[in-house]
Amino acid sequence: MAKDKKVEQITDMEVDFAQWFTDVCKKAELIDYSSIKGMFIYRPYGYAIWENIQHIMDAEFKKCGVENVYMPMLIPESLLQKEKDHVEGFAPECAWVTMGGTEKLEERYCIRPTSETLFCEHYKNVIQSHRDLPKLYNQWCSVLRWEKTSRPFLRHREFLWQEGHTMHATAEEAEEFTQRMLNVYADFCEQVLAMPVIRGRKTDKEKFNGAEATYTIECMMHDRKALQAGTSHYFGDGFAKAFDIAFTSKDNQRVNPFQTSWGVSTRLIGGIIMTHGDNNGLVLPPKIAPVQVIVVPVAQHKPGVVEGATAAMDRLRAAGVRAKIDLSDNSLGWKCAEYEMKGVPLRLEIGPRDLENGSCVLVRRDSGEKTVVRLDELETKAAELLQAVHDGLFEKAKKNLDDHIYEAHSLEEAKALQEQNGGFIKTMWCGDEACELKMKDVAGMSSRCMPFAQEHLDDVCPVCGRKAVKSILWGVAY
Amino acid sequence: MAKDKKVEQITDMEVDFAQWFTDVCKKAELIDYSSIKGMFIYRPYGYAIWENIQHIMDAEFKKCGVENVYMPMLIPESLLQKEKDHVEGFAPECAWVTMGGTEKLEERYCIRPTSETLFCEHYKNVIQSHRDLPKLYNQWCSVLRWEKTSRPFLRHREFLWQEGHTMHATAEEAEEFTQRMLNVYADFCEQVLAMPVIRGRKTDKEKFNGAEATYTIECMMHDRKALQAGTSHYFGDGFAKAFDIAFTSKDNQRVNPFQTSWGVSTRLIGGIIMTHGDNNGLVLPPKIAPVQVIVVPVAQHKPGVVEGATAAMDRLRAAGVRAKIDLSDNSLGWKCAEYEMKGVPLRLEIGPRDLENGSCVLVRRDSGEKTVVRLDELETKAAELLQAVHDGLFEKAKKNLDDHIYEAHSLEEAKALQEQNGGFIKTMWCGDEACELKMKDVAGMSSRCMPFAQEHLDDVCPVCGRKAVKSILWGVAY
Repeated sequence: MAKDKKVEQITDMEVDFAQWFTDVCKKAELIDYSSIKGMFIYRPYGYAIWENIQHIMDAEFKKCGVENVYMPMLIPESLLQKEKDHVEGFAPECAWVTMGGTEKLEERYCIRPTSETLFCEHYKNVIQSHRDLPKLYNQWCSVLRWEKTSRPFLRHREFLWQEGHTMHATAEEAEEFTQRMLNVYADFCEQVLAMPVIRGRKTDKEKFNGAEATYTIECMMHDRKALQAGTSHYFGDGFAKAFDIAFTSKDNQRVNPFQTSWGVSTRLIGGIIMTHGDNNGLVLPPKIAPVQVIVVPVAQHKPGVVEGATAAMDRLRAAGVRAKIDLSDNSLGWKCAEYEMKGVPLRLEIGPRDLENGSCVLVRRDSGEKTVVRLDELETKAAELLQAVHDGLFEKAKKNLDDHIYEAHSLEEAKALQEQNGGFIKTMWCGDEACELKMKDVAGMSSRCMPFAQEHLDDVCPVCGRKAVKSILWGVAY
Repeated sequence: MAKDKKVEQITDMEVDFAQWFTDVCKKAELIDYSSIKGMFIYRPYGYAIWENIQHIMDAEFKKCGVENVYMPMLIPESLLQKEKDHVEGFAPECAWVTMGGTEKLEERYCIRPTSETLFCEHYKNVIQSHRDLPKLYNQWCSVLRWEKTSRPFLRHREFLWQEGHTMHATAEEAEEFTQRMLNVYADFCEQVLAMPVIRGRKTDKEKFNGAEATYTIECMMHDRKALQAGTSHYFGDGFAKAFDIAFTSKDNQRVNPFQTSWGVSTRLIGGIIMTHGDNNGLVLPPKIAPVQVIVVPVAQHKPGVVEGATAAMDRLRAAGVRAKIDLSDNSLGWKCAEYEMKGVPLRLEIGPRDLENGSCVLVRRDSGEKTVVRLDELETKAAELLQAVHDGLFEKAKKNLDDHIYEAHSLEEAKALQEQNGGFIKTMWCGDEACELKMKDVAGMSSRCMPFAQEHLDDVCPVCGRKAVKSILWGVAY
């Protein structure tokens, strides 16, 4: 009964996907609301997922030679204005500090919506010679964008993220690094979060304010809508010129360096929820799950059970598994429902009969599949099953993605396919922004990316009928 | 020559300690200035020290059952005002956000100067029953205080810190936890940063706004001034009442929980610099040094040297030592001076003759002592020497502290001792704030703490001559 009660708290995703999502965020204790609209509290369980993401991703950054720094959270208005496209994009959604203590400030400061301008100001101080390059910096921080609407993890006024900002001696090197970081993100999503991605380039309309090129990884959620999971931008030397950053090259020329920036945010957690979750709640990819195995004793009051269950947990921990035990007086049913809702990848059940047999039962969160495991093989079997959960999640999500990419050859067909199936619609494109706007207007879809894996689907653009130059993916996006 | 040139960049500490400090922060590339007064950039080398501090300290917190969360950076003015003493203390130094995008906000928000009010607002939502207690939360973030003056690491308008906030069912448990966290800080300073501390309680005048009791660890810098390195506060149930936070106890009563908060900041890095640094620059305690051993090849162009030096680095890394090699074409003298300035605890020199002998030379940053080490013992010897550097730093700092605590029995004596020697002056105290103010006025010293290790030095207060109740330490503080 306890089990049913708990699951009832979550709206079925088929009934109302948005409500299901909010229910999961709240009931799995990932997030709480604060008294300011759009500013959320990351609760311990939600924050622990982010810590695991940070830990693994930061190690990948460091392998690329990236160093962490921390820049101020405030940007003087005059500094933000130095790059025209950039300020046009961000100024309308900045929060402005106008008072310091009891005094009105001479110049107002915005809370960083992103930190290109701050990095540029610093790079001007520390880049003089070709020996100072490349500079490969990153920071983990929060940024603030005064959005009108908000949803947990997907759209916060303040959200946690990382922003990498690099400077290079040549355009080629900077371009290469832009794509290298996109690949770090893509591999991370697939190998750590079990979220398959499509890699591609954004259209000019969708690129970052001030960038020459924006590359993206796009994921498909369970409701077949698109989530932009990470982006990497190539800036050329535009900002460097605007900020007067230059270095003396080997042949003694004064040259502006070439710049990149790249970021992912706690939006990834929104992606995890909507990719893997089900009507029983959260389903967490094992590699970032705060608890990988929850140990639940059966007939806990019987002699030896608590000891046996604790010994199993200790052994898992010693093997590097994030294991936890629930010895509370809640019922077995309650516990099962609780850790299902929280998305713990494996549940270990162990009772008097198991202990007699020298075994226990491991239950997979993703499939419900039960495996009887001999205790002397516990560590190996748990590791295998955690990998199996990861693989299972990835395959299911990959199938969802592959099954819901539809090819269209006319605007009407694109619209009909989207209305009927959701998902991504792939077409050719002439490259004209007018056609992009028309697709949005008529079919309600934005361009997601021009995939790196280009296809020849047709000779002409489905919107205007002129010569097509690229294949492109469309979708309804979060 | 290169060596001398580098060291010349740093003012001698005996000439001008404040300038020496700023020189070290700048030349060792710990920090850079931004265009906003008092807001500093943490550069890679400075931030890496903070990352190491975070890593070790966070693990200690987790051993105490503490969970990390993240609260919004903005506090509505009405929320800040809920606890009277608290708002009085902090409102004058808040930065205020008054515009969101292009709209004037109905209520202004301050950027958190500290987050008691935000935690209380959340605790009200998540604490209902005694089963919900204790709540042991912490966050790593930056806070903002609109200070008039600023110095790197010691006084920033924005600085990085951690703030723990806990709620407990009983006053006793909260009091105990307050002191437990103080001890975590004290042990960390001594065992990780090699900074000896004095543990004690702050006077009412010096305690945190809104706290019932503030406990502190006080360190003595090389110039014999005091640095408050960490504080832990007991709040009683004052905030809980102001915020209407209550739980149902086991016997079904509605009870307000008891609260603590505790924090350390990047000020610790200022403490490290001023405790261990010398006229050649930074001296880093090995446990938090970003580079623990710098490998410097001698006669680098000779065959086999680069390979031999690299092999030594690889072996150190494999043993878990943070080792780095400098293969640049800078001179040996330049390299020695560079890594001395950067405070790297051990320098490993290795050249053709060493390689022939199967040995290398390890040079201690703190003492300059050279040890010839056989390569087949490299890992063990490096670990021993790193520990020896830690012990050497601690002993030297402990001697500085012990040698400069002076006992006084009158206001005049206290003043004279401070003027003559600096350091801490210990006296008795009647407990009256008037005497505390007079000490500040006459002798220029603030009370640092009433040490946990109380002494009976006299029967009366040296200021007013009335009955003394406590021994107390005075000093000139950063």
